[in-house]
Amino acid sequence: MPSQLEGAMGALITVFYNYSGNEGDKHKLNKGELKELLHSELTDFLTSQKDPMVVEKIMNDLDSNKDNEVDFNEFVVLVAALTVACNDFFQEQSKNKK
Amino acid sequence: MPSQLEGAMGALITVFYNYSGNEGDKHKLNKGELKELLHSELTDFLTSQKDPMVVEKIMNDLDSNKDNEVDFNEFVVLVAALTVACNDFFQEQSKNKK
Repeated sequence: MPSQLEGAMGALITVFYNYSGNEGDKHKLNKGELKELLHSELTDFLTSQKDPMVVEKIMNDLDSNKDNEVDFNEFVVLVAALTVACNDFFQEQSKNKK
Repeated sequence: MPSQLEGAMGALITVFYNYSGNEGDKHKLNKGELKELLHSELTDFLTSQKDPMVVEKIMNDLDSNKDNEVDFNEFVVLVAALTVACNDFFQEQSKNKK
């Protein structure tokens, strides 16, 4: 049985390949695949964003080597940033409660 | 129901606080807490490392602000790096199979 942390790391890899495998390079997300991943996996995050260009902006920010695709390393940077943002939010909430 | 990706992000936060809450600052891992986290959550990774100083080295590498504790942002960097390393390994394996 994997530990909770190993399970989470495995899930990141599984989610990425579930979408990257659809079209073109199977190890990279193109814009359509990234959009689908964000819509299906981070629905609440995406609907809370008012900016209609949000997927394009995320793509541009993540695609550090400018090949118009997001590889796994670039994807992990997104997940890390979002998780840190979530954690900051909850820390702030718990401070306000005290 | 959270999506698989949301579940993984939540698990990272849960795992961190399961250990950081034990002693001292509840939002940071001291060396003992980090050691316990690595031993319990990444047992196979840790036993594969021959270096007896591995926990000290990881601590030094992660503790970017040099306060002798690992905060959540520093922890996410470790998880991201390990996940990228796992992914590189599996990509290499799958290339060798072809």
